[in-house]
Amino acid sequence: MLLRIYVYPGSFDPVTNGHLDIIERASRLCDKLVVAVLVNGNKNPAFTLEERVDLLNRAIAGRKNVEVISFDGLLINLAKREGALTIIKGLRAVSDFEYEMQMAHLNKIQDNEIETLFMMTSVNYSFLSSSSVREIAKLGGSINDLVPECVKDDIFKKFGRRQGE
Amino acid sequence: MLLRIYVYPGSFDPVTNGHLDIIERASRLCDKLVVAVLVNGNKNPAFTLEERVDLLNRAIAGRKNVEVISFDGLLINLAKREGALTIIKGLRAVSDFEYEMQMAHLNKIQDNEIETLFMMTSVNYSFLSSSSVREIAKLGGSINDLVPECVKDDIFKKFGRRQGE
Amino acid sequence: MLLRIYVYPGSFDPVTNGHLDIIERASRLCDKLVVAVLVNGNKNPAFTLEERVDLLNRAIAGRKNVEVISFDGLLINLAKREGALTIIKGLRAVSDFEYEMQMAHLNKIQDNEIETLFMMTSVNYSFLSSSSVREIAKLGGSINDLVPECVKDDIFKKFGRRQGE
Amino acid sequence: MLLRIYVYPGSFDPVTNGHLDIIERASRLCDKLVVAVLVNGNKNPAFTLEERVDLLNRAIAGRKNVEVISFDGLLINLAKREGALTIIKGLRAVSDFEYEMQMAHLNKIQDNEIETLFMMTSVNYSFLSSSSVREIAKLGGSINDLVPECVKDDIFKKFGRRQGE
Amino acid sequence: MLLRIYVYPGSFDPVTNGHLDIIERASRLCDKLVVAVLVNGNKNPAFTLEERVDLLNRAIAGRKNVEVISFDGLLINLAKREGALTIIKGLRAVSDFEYEMQMAHLNKIQDNEIETLFMMTSVNYSFLSSSSVREIAKLGGSINDLVPECVKDDIFKKFGRRQGE
Amino acid sequence: MLLRIYVYPGSFDPVTNGHLDIIERASRLCDKLVVAVLVNGNKNPAFTLEERVDLLNRAIAGRKNVEVISFDGLLINLAKREGALTIIKGLRAVSDFEYEMQMAHLNKIQDNEIETLFMMTSVNYSFLSSSSVREIAKLGGSINDLVPECVKDDIFKKFGRRQGE
Repeated sequence: MLLRIYVYPGSFDPVTNGHLDIIERASRLCDKLVVAVLVNGNKNPAFTLEERVDLLNRAIAGRKNVEVISFDGLLINLAKREGALTIIKGLRAVSDFEYEMQMAHLNKIQDNEIETLFMMTSVNYSFLSSSSVREIAKLGGSINDLVPECVKDDIFKKFGRRQGE
Repeated sequence: MLLRIYVYPGSFDPVTNGHLDIIERASRLCDKLVVAVLVNGNKNPAFTLEERVDLLNRAIAGRKNVEVISFDGLLINLAKREGALTIIKGLRAVSDFEYEMQMAHLNKIQDNEIETLFMMTSVNYSFLSSSSVREIAKLGGSINDLVPECVKDDIFKKFGRRQGE
Repeated sequence: MLLRIYVYPGSFDPVTNGHLDIIERASRLCDKLVVAVLVNGNKNPAFTLEERVDLLNRAIAGRKNVEVISFDGLLINLAKREGALTIIKGLRAVSDFEYEMQMAHLNKIQDNEIETLFMMTSVNYSFLSSSSVREIAKLGGSINDLVPECVKDDIFKKFGRRQGE
Repeated sequence: MLLRIYVYPGSFDPVTNGHLDIIERASRLCDKLVVAVLVNGNKNPAFTLEERVDLLNRAIAGRKNVEVISFDGLLINLAKREGALTIIKGLRAVSDFEYEMQMAHLNKIQDNEIETLFMMTSVNYSFLSSSSVREIAKLGGSINDLVPECVKDDIFKKFGRRQGE
Repeated sequence: MLLRIYVYPGSFDPVTNGHLDIIERASRLCDKLVVAVLVNGNKNPAFTLEERVDLLNRAIAGRKNVEVISFDGLLINLAKREGALTIIKGLRAVSDFEYEMQMAHLNKIQDNEIETLFMMTSVNYSFLSSSSVREIAKLGGSINDLVPECVKDDIFKKFGRRQGE
Repeated sequence: MLLRIYVYPGSFDPVTNGHLDIIERASRLCDKLVVAVLVNGNKNPAFTLEERVDLLNRAIAGRKNVEVISFDGLLINLAKREGALTIIKGLRAVSDFEYEMQMAHLNKIQDNEIETLFMMTSVNYSFLSSSSVREIAKLGGSINDLVPECVKDDIFKKFGRRQGE
């Protein structure tokens, strides 16, 4: 039997409960899940690469078959380097679907061996994105059910105010 | 390491090159792929259950880790019976996506352990469905690139005329 | 101040928790909510008109400003008869949206005075429909979180088996 | 210069102002427009083939480069028989788009020479379909702005009541 | 009976006939409509906050139950401050729908008491946005049917040329 | 018979095989195809206007009824100047469709005489865009099947590295 390695790429700016949902469920379907933080996913990320990796590491604490790395370059080159045949992505909405379909086809052209698999994000997080977390935190709203408990303070520190202040 | 078993459910009325594309690619990502033919997927299938299973068996001939079965009842019960943690489905278009998202969420409610994974159908078959194959065959059109070579004659026999006749 | 009356039309074959979610939230936004069961919404409804009205009445028990009626004919005629300026509908997915947009525009042409308002169905029920409840009940699956507790037995009676039997 | 012939296929059960909008605009872009009524587009059409052709002929009265025919079989065979290189279709909504994209690709496989061109239906008719006309007429609603004046009476005769009766 | 107050938020950069259509229709369904101009809806608005409020005030002149305000911060805080239980939004297209569905769910998490209601923008304005008005005005095109008559000159002044110059 | 002239507008930053597919197929349906490069389609194009026109001219070399021009201003003014009654656009996905539907309706308001026709991009290029070509080239990936052979070197020169370097 092959070792099944999945790569889960993203900006994670910052990690949300939606990402964590995919990480938990995907890590049960493979032998090792490599969470890959894109160096340049967003032009101007709110969190530095180090911060994004650090928040992720805290969020996944204790999961044995999950590893967080950062990467630059072509996603398929990363997959090959990690020995992964599978890229895993979450799908929330139709707009996700069309973009991800394009990316999956472009990656197939780069390397036909590597497949992209998709999971539907849990309904509880189907409306959630890193950008909406940033927006709500900036305006002083509640992000209680949107991000892992252990990273909440870092997000408010970044945006300068806490709910109710 | 766990044995990774995927269930690939459908009506397969009849099998198309789009189905075969998913079977080939999915079977490389798991240890065993169970192709499950729904007894009552369509109210009035054009092909009998036996015919649909038989066409599939011919189409997948020689693939070692692929098995064709028929089933009735809840998909998650089948998955449990087969020892599968994963249902695999192909996605072609936005309309697929919305329907499949609903089914995936309903299956999660029935059994939270079992996950549905999705693959994008290859662009060459992104416009292809069993119903369009039936329609074209009925009208005497060409289904050369739409279905596996070895099942073409059975499809024309069913619909009573060949292209050019 | 005007009395604000909303009409909430549908087949309710049978009522689901998704319908109940809209009824609860919409009834807080108006003075009176008229739940209108379409006589011929589905060609072959699984439940008779009387059963559908009865299940709804049990599901809404105790809500003071909600009334269940049945109706045949043009929706705008019903709205006028009930003194309602507003039709209220739930939206779950893109496919809902396109169909409801067409219906809203067609109703505007029939009577420009009457407006259709839409609410997003709660995420917990965004994947839920009467037809999926019927399908799951037929196959003996669990409908625990899908329909109001007080109508569950009637649904299983209709389809002849309970989960686990 | 080639003679530019367009084929505009459909069920036209019955013709609506949306169809007439496409006919008028498309007929200005080609030398001849062949409106092709599908014999078996709907399983159980409300209007017979003869009625559908007759209503169309009245609706287009006086347009010199438009011709109404009926046809059975593959659309691309009809196009070849008529000397047309172009199939023209109207697009109203996303659901139209996905279906028509599939049909266009399937027709390309049958005959790579023949292209499908699309026009956006005018916003005034973007919500309009033959089935909604039938539904409204059955319920005794107003179809004044939905179908050509000269076919209104035939539609009400078919469905047995006029508005206000 | 409660006083029904609706909040209609947006950038209004500038107000269009599509906005005015929603304002007119929504103001008939509530006792008071608060049109709320987002201070920072767009990063770089073409019109200043004062200009956007001023154009709106001229466009709604004479409507008794409509008030224009500007606001910064969380939308649900504004709704609470204004005593509104309802946020009202217009829907034009599928892309609107997905974005607004996300926003409605995020607002529900912030405050479960406040509901978002949606109206379909009239077909005549279903293709219209503030950004397309700006683009057309910049290129010297006609915005006659796109914006209220009384704000046309201000828009052309902003962009420095009139049609035909 | 009229001379049928089509205008095919775009940023072409840079030309892809998807554009070339539309050019080839559309040029067979008209007497003359004017490929119109938008001066300001993108705010910050990667290629200058001269480069984009030059790459296009090389890509279409030898096609007799195709002409490449650049333009600024309203598309309908360009169409009138060129004697064209038709704007031709390619459609790949639902997101394209909604945007193009808006543009088509806005252009109709500017000049009701000029129609927009749409072709479905071939499935092989349905996932392809100029921005994805730029992104892949920047990361050193393969663009072999994505752009015309004769412009590949210019694209790599622009982005500073070749595949494998």
